[in-house]
Amino acid sequence: MKSRAAVAFEAGKPLQIVEIDVAPPQKGEVLVKITHTGVCHTDAFTLSGEDPEGIFPAVLGHEGAGVVVQVGEGVTTLKEGDRVIPLYTAECRECKFCKSGKTNLCQAVRATQGKGLMPDGTSRFSYQGKPIYHYMGTSTFSEYTVVPEISLAKIDDEAPLEKVCLLGCGVTTGIGAVHNTAKVKAGDTVAVFGLGGIGLAVIMGAKEAGASRIIGVDINPDKFKLAGELGATDCINPKDYSKPIQEVIVELTDGGVDFSFECIGNVDVMRSALECCHKGWGESVIIGVAGAGQEISTRPFQLVTGRVWRGSAFGGVRGRTELPGMVKKAMSGELPLEPFITHTLPLEKINEAFDLMHEGKSIRTVIHF
Amino acid sequence: MKSRAAVAFEAGKPLQIVEIDVAPPQKGEVLVKITHTGVCHTDAFTLSGEDPEGIFPAVLGHEGAGVVVQVGEGVTTLKEGDRVIPLYTAECRECKFCKSGKTNLCQAVRATQGKGLMPDGTSRFSYQGKPIYHYMGTSTFSEYTVVPEISLAKIDDEAPLEKVCLLGCGVTTGIGAVHNTAKVKAGDTVAVFGLGGIGLAVIMGAKEAGASRIIGVDINPDKFKLAGELGATDCINPKDYSKPIQEVIVELTDGGVDFSFECIGNVDVMRSALECCHKGWGESVIIGVAGAGQEISTRPFQLVTGRVWRGSAFGGVRGRTELPGMVKKAMSGELPLEPFITHTLPLEKINEAFDLMHEGKSIRTVIHF
Repeated sequence: MKSRAAVAFEAGKPLQIVEIDVAPPQKGEVLVKITHTGVCHTDAFTLSGEDPEGIFPAVLGHEGAGVVVQVGEGVTTLKEGDRVIPLYTAECRECKFCKSGKTNLCQAVRATQGKGLMPDGTSRFSYQGKPIYHYMGTSTFSEYTVVPEISLAKIDDEAPLEKVCLLGCGVTTGIGAVHNTAKVKAGDTVAVFGLGGIGLAVIMGAKEAGASRIIGVDINPDKFKLAGELGATDCINPKDYSKPIQEVIVELTDGGVDFSFECIGNVDVMRSALECCHKGWGESVIIGVAGAGQEISTRPFQLVTGRVWRGSAFGGVRGRTELPGMVKKAMSGELPLEPFITHTLPLEKINEAFDLMHEGKSIRTVIHF
Repeated sequence: MKSRAAVAFEAGKPLQIVEIDVAPPQKGEVLVKITHTGVCHTDAFTLSGEDPEGIFPAVLGHEGAGVVVQVGEGVTTLKEGDRVIPLYTAECRECKFCKSGKTNLCQAVRATQGKGLMPDGTSRFSYQGKPIYHYMGTSTFSEYTVVPEISLAKIDDEAPLEKVCLLGCGVTTGIGAVHNTAKVKAGDTVAVFGLGGIGLAVIMGAKEAGASRIIGVDINPDKFKLAGELGATDCINPKDYSKPIQEVIVELTDGGVDFSFECIGNVDVMRSALECCHKGWGESVIIGVAGAGQEISTRPFQLVTGRVWRGSAFGGVRGRTELPGMVKKAMSGELPLEPFITHTLPLEKINEAFDLMHEGKSIRTVIHF
């Protein structure tokens, strides 16, 4: 079938809105009509060419929501009309990782997904007869996309897709990192580096957990107002200090924070985030994705004296199991998504969403088809 | 009073056996007659001059046991004749760290201890009228030493001091890192880098925890026999492989180990230890002490995909609370210390203990006074 899509034909160039061909869903696959999709920094990172795993031409997009149009052979958990959120972290419930109960990093479709292909090693997308690659197993920048059954979370039939699409990545990643990865508890102190969509979601999660102090850190003070509204008790700009920001935070908090979160993807900030943690027990969680070949460093003494360095992918959330509940919380108002949505645009203007993000003017732009 | 002691007059030179003067214990302090002390790599590290915090002249030694000779004003928990193990990690039970319940890193005497001084800012040791510094708050290379009350674990009146001195550092550090820091459970897989005293204690702890596979790693295959006797199921030598040892271990274990321990102090090995951990949940514990200014590095992707990087000091053990029980286990045979003691020497031959260690011939040499 034909589908309007924003295609990344090559790195570093704007997306092109074209009509692509989408092949029917194969065994274990589902055809989804995407109604809304967020535009995330990871899409921009891949489009820029800095992502070593980026493949072109591809249909980017990984923060979407939509409705099932057609199911392939053997699909049993979804049917036409079901509302769904595509998952870039699948949940097969059968692999060693899913069965471990210790991680959300299902490996069932990881290898082919990383190559921009469906599990059978081929693509469902083509343009003028030439194949177009999938992206993160989701490719939500196409009105119609094909996704493995195990990479779709079935959500409430009344879910507002124009909002809950954000649970496909940023908001879930931030909130999940607080609850699942760090396990922040009431009274804990928290530092959040980077006040974009993920950082704001971390703040929201930390407030929900009852953190006593939530310190937002960003070099763009325009971000401080919303951060404060969502729960940040302090906001600081590293440019306002001559000493390293980790020292500032250690002084502010009488020894450091209980938990810190890096929500940017900058390896130097990752070090600051670790080193602002309290000796003896502070834990730092890396959420941001760093550029190819970049490495984190610190003196091992930082760890020997009790700090812990962790990371989090998709907030440690098992999508099929946990997203339906998060959608319910969004519907009840317990998990407000409105603050994240600063702009909405039609697919045809998707490149403007990237511009707004690069200029630091948007938290999330939601694209509608 | 006069005391025989092995004094480190300057970095890089052998210790000199001399008679020093030891001043009486002040308020909150205790005079201890050391009967036995182990010689640990950390003593050698400081003596070498590589330790940035090394101060000379000093009485080194931090793995000892002895008997209380005299208590200073206000000391209530110890009396003459009590058997004790000096603690380089004090336990005041009153500071923020002790009260947190999250760490053993009591900070009560940390600042002065790091300067080679007693809590009042002076030394109890002198030689020919000139002050000699303390070391790690313990200075067990002197027949008589002065230690804060909060830095002494009172142990059983019948404790065999010639063995339980090893609980003052190496054995406790290794076993504690397994139980307190990593929390290894039955069935877990473990890799241990460096098969010296601490590495062997890690193996012993891992076996006790019921680990299903314990992989010892050392470039000296002479270490493998004892490692196997203590519980290692596999021993591998990185020199036998052309590929990085972390890749070897990942292949051996179908994806990596659940826990790894670095027991050397080599930052490159620390990276290997992290990267041999299983994606999704593997945790690596740094125990070894690296040289001044050295840093650990890795790609943040290692953490984002679920590995955890931690460290452990004195095995996370709160000395006054936990060492008495470990001494009891040593006395009952449940925690055998004999395998660690490969040599015993009188104080006068202490420099031979350093030679044996540097030549890789000893696990521990116990010095008797």
